[in-house]
Amino acid sequence: MRRALQEAQIAFDKDEIPVGALVVQDNKIIGRGHNQTELLHDVTAHAEIIALTAAFNHLGAKYLPDATLYVTLEPCHMCAGALYWSKIGRIVYGASDEKHGYRKFYGNQSPFHPKTVVESGLLATAGAELMKSFFQRKRTAK
Amino acid sequence: MRRALQEAQIAFDKDEIPVGALVVQDNKIIGRGHNQTELLHDVTAHAEIIALTAAFNHLGAKYLPDATLYVTLEPCHMCAGALYWSKIGRIVYGASDEKHGYRKFYGNQSPFHPKTVVESGLLATAGAELMKSFFQRKRTAK
Repeated sequence: MRRALQEAQIAFDKDEIPVGALVVQDNKIIGRGHNQTELLHDVTAHAEIIALTAAFNHLGAKYLPDATLYVTLEPCHMCAGALYWSKIGRIVYGASDEKHGYRKFYGNQSPFHPKTVVESGLLATAGAELMKSFFQRKRTAK
Repeated sequence: MRRALQEAQIAFDKDEIPVGALVVQDNKIIGRGHNQTELLHDVTAHAEIIALTAAFNHLGAKYLPDATLYVTLEPCHMCAGALYWSKIGRIVYGASDEKHGYRKFYGNQSPFHPKTVVESGLLATAGAELMKSFFQRKRTAK
């Protein structure tokens, strides 16, 4: 998750909402991504989607049952859908996202594949602090 | 929607699940896509995502409030999330998807932006028939 936070910091430094993600399999990083929605003018360019696509490319496979996604913030409902399709083995996210997190949309229903294990809270404070600093900077700049 | 069905036919001919999508603004196609999950080994390469990304690139903008997405099949929960973020003005989908359509996941809650208008059923039979033919072919090939 520290490496995912480094990805989030890259986004922060590029004036993007600071979210970072990694896909790890057999202790090896097979995909990484940071949010690039501003640079690409593309709201689908979330950290998770970029990291997943990198992992698919790396493996030449479209399912990731043996991989773990680490992401600094609770995934949104789009990314939750992408993770569902990927059949990823494990998802570890840091900070909760009350406003746009997937739990707001899906309620008690899991949007993920039945075999996917979900954990949360890892280095959550660091991920949340980065988000807070980003939006504080945005407000100050106005 | 006829043009979206042509996109779906392209997917069919490439042995991809036959779904096609177009983004239209001011009577002009600004994005098109067909499902490419097999070719790209990427489960995020749905017709809608590809068409949206093309539209963002075309406009150099990350929101599409004045555009309409036409898609031959009810979007899944990932694509519904992408459409939410895009703030697209209107979504028109053809056939319903009982198994993977967004309504299965979100229940009565809309996953879209509050201003997005959603219509369904346009050329639904044609879109559904294409899907049926595809899976029949798959079964016969086994």
